[in-house]
Amino acid sequence: MVNNEKTEIVESILQAAKARLVAYGLDKTTMNEIADDIGMSKASLYYYFTNKEDLFRAVIQHEHKHFLEEQNTYLNSGLSAYQLLQNYADERLKFFQDLLNINKLNLHLIHKSKPAFAPLFEVFRQKEILLVHQMLEHGIQNKEFHFFDVRQYAELFIDLIQGLRRNFTLKKDFINISQEDYQMLGRQYHLLVQIFCTGIKCPS
Amino acid sequence: MVNNEKTEIVESILQAAKARLVAYGLDKTTMNEIADDIGMSKASLYYYFTNKEDLFRAVIQHEHKHFLEEQNTYLNSGLSAYQLLQNYADERLKFFQDLLNINKLNLHLIHKSKPAFAPLFEVFRQKEILLVHQMLEHGIQNKEFHFFDVRQYAELFIDLIQGLRRNFTLKKDFINISQEDYQMLGRQYHLLVQIFCTGIKCPS
Repeated sequence: MVNNEKTEIVESILQAAKARLVAYGLDKTTMNEIADDIGMSKASLYYYFTNKEDLFRAVIQHEHKHFLEEQNTYLNSGLSAYQLLQNYADERLKFFQDLLNINKLNLHLIHKSKPAFAPLFEVFRQKEILLVHQMLEHGIQNKEFHFFDVRQYAELFIDLIQGLRRNFTLKKDFINISQEDYQMLGRQYHLLVQIFCTGIKCPS
Repeated sequence: MVNNEKTEIVESILQAAKARLVAYGLDKTTMNEIADDIGMSKASLYYYFTNKEDLFRAVIQHEHKHFLEEQNTYLNSGLSAYQLLQNYADERLKFFQDLLNINKLNLHLIHKSKPAFAPLFEVFRQKEILLVHQMLEHGIQNKEFHFFDVRQYAELFIDLIQGLRRNFTLKKDFINISQEDYQMLGRQYHLLVQIFCTGIKCPS
């Protein structure tokens, strides 16, 4: 099989898996159903992914890659660094919301699977620090922001965003997260970006 | 027994319990030892506290009350709001460090006991929001800060501080937290306070 073909097959598996996961959650999705959705034998599906958790991990990775690619296209679109960071915060919230939706039917599984996903989430974190690094650099070149230790500030920004999210998941009962709860977190993100960007802006 | 006397006894129990807990951790401290330390019968100790967890909770509450009282004395000491918030962040880190030290010998217990302590920590959070509320008010009256929705900003500030702490406990292996790790968290606190205060300062 040529590489291109393989990539296409994996892509179609991930798409089908994502659709199922978003609609029914991880717990109520089976490998059989995903194979059926794309007219593939179960054996073939297992050739690509050794189990459901593996496939789930690949779906999240794929979605995160897509999220980063989209964010990267904004970098040279003429937006201000402030707008880039605001947009990052908005889109990151949506990504988080999708992730929780996939898990909505199984609170227990989230807590059980946390250690297994920790290394993956650390990779996401590092990639996002790099992204925010570029946004902050852009702001310095733009003369929106004064000069500072960009790496340290990017890490702090990501950790602040992540910390607010962790407060949210630790405080909330996953089963009952309402649209309003997400909006509240969104308002905190907005206020943080606003204060952060004002706090590092160039003295005019 | 008059109320004063009772308060004094409780105070001496809490002191003895704190000393034991800091030195040996929750797991390796017994009610018997605490009773012995202050020359009290075990039965008398149980009259005041029904079990070790109860006593532990009272110790934390007592320490937090002390922390807040100290912070409150600074409010009218002539410090700037920026200094107050920086000082709050420093002292809150020490309080956090003491709490983790008490639990250092039993990682399992921390995770197991989390739900039981969640309501208590929520009370702490509300009290600290009130404290920071007063600090921000002070900054507005001082003309250090511009006018804003103080309640919302105080809540965000506390949630940011708490979020950084949660990143720390979720990432770290409790057994192996080094002094350097705490220093790194302290640097994040400092940078956050600095950016936050610059971000809300009065336009000069």
